[in-house]
Amino acid sequence: MSEELRQAISATQEKFRLTPEAANASFHSASKLTQGFRSDVAIRQHQLVVDEPAQLGGTDAGPNPIELMLAALGACQEITYQAYAAALGIPLRSVSVKLEGQIDLRGFFGVDDSVRPGFQQITGQVHIDSDASPAQLEKLKAMVDAHCPVLDMLSAPVPVNLNLT
Amino acid sequence: MSEELRQAISATQEKFRLTPEAANASFHSASKLTQGFRSDVAIRQHQLVVDEPAQLGGTDAGPNPIELMLAALGACQEITYQAYAAALGIPLRSVSVKLEGQIDLRGFFGVDDSVRPGFQQITGQVHIDSDASPAQLEKLKAMVDAHCPVLDMLSAPVPVNLNLT
Repeated sequence: MSEELRQAISATQEKFRLTPEAANASFHSASKLTQGFRSDVAIRQHQLVVDEPAQLGGTDAGPNPIELMLAALGACQEITYQAYAAALGIPLRSVSVKLEGQIDLRGFFGVDDSVRPGFQQITGQVHIDSDASPAQLEKLKAMVDAHCPVLDMLSAPVPVNLNLT
Repeated sequence: MSEELRQAISATQEKFRLTPEAANASFHSASKLTQGFRSDVAIRQHQLVVDEPAQLGGTDAGPNPIELMLAALGACQEITYQAYAAALGIPLRSVSVKLEGQIDLRGFFGVDDSVRPGFQQITGQVHIDSDASPAQLEKLKAMVDAHCPVLDMLSAPVPVNLNLT
């Protein structure tokens, strides 16, 4: 897998170097609140149910939006480890991620406007099974954290423009 | 629903005013790359499959991480509209959200380090069915955008600490 992946990544990089506009892509989601706090989301052919747990007023039919953010970060880290391990020729047998996000719900509930509505911090463990040296793994982690799209979006503001109709 | 919800929100706000430490909560995810770019995620009792589409080297068994970010933002906006419409006594029959995220893949692929790996911008439409006045809806949008946890995390950096083991 990893040699095949290394070649695929290398070919993609070469394509984007020669034709930068080929690297422009857009992704979409469409969702609708169906009852209470339950939202049914469509992403291409994929369906997802998002809801709040009972203690936050939902029916717990799925993870809530901030849990989904953790899922996005964990999977993004793993995919980026897989891609950069292959690109750098660093052995990687498996990668898994456990994350915890801490929130002060006074922010969302508007009880104290000095409290942010989102996570105050996210902490986690990335567990790797690999024969690589500590120096290789340190280099890999630095490359992953510099190129992980979800980590980037949590680290630097993303311009968001929402129109109400 | 909305009067019941208004009372529940009001009771929660009162509880957090009296006992701020009751507002501290934490959320978790655990994920593992199972093959290629496919990640299986567990959030409490909920399971989720994340993958990349074929053109990005995956098997498309689920949405990819940045699509999941859009899903999280859309559902979070909807839930926050539902909660604040109830809290403010503004009528709301339905709410749905369509989002588009634009990315330059040269960032993720490390082709140009001046290009960020995440979305360069997110644009979208929030569609509301309501008898409320334009002024009420403007007020509702301002309250939602100030208190939506996922929008907050895209607008201001979240400290993230990941340990590699």
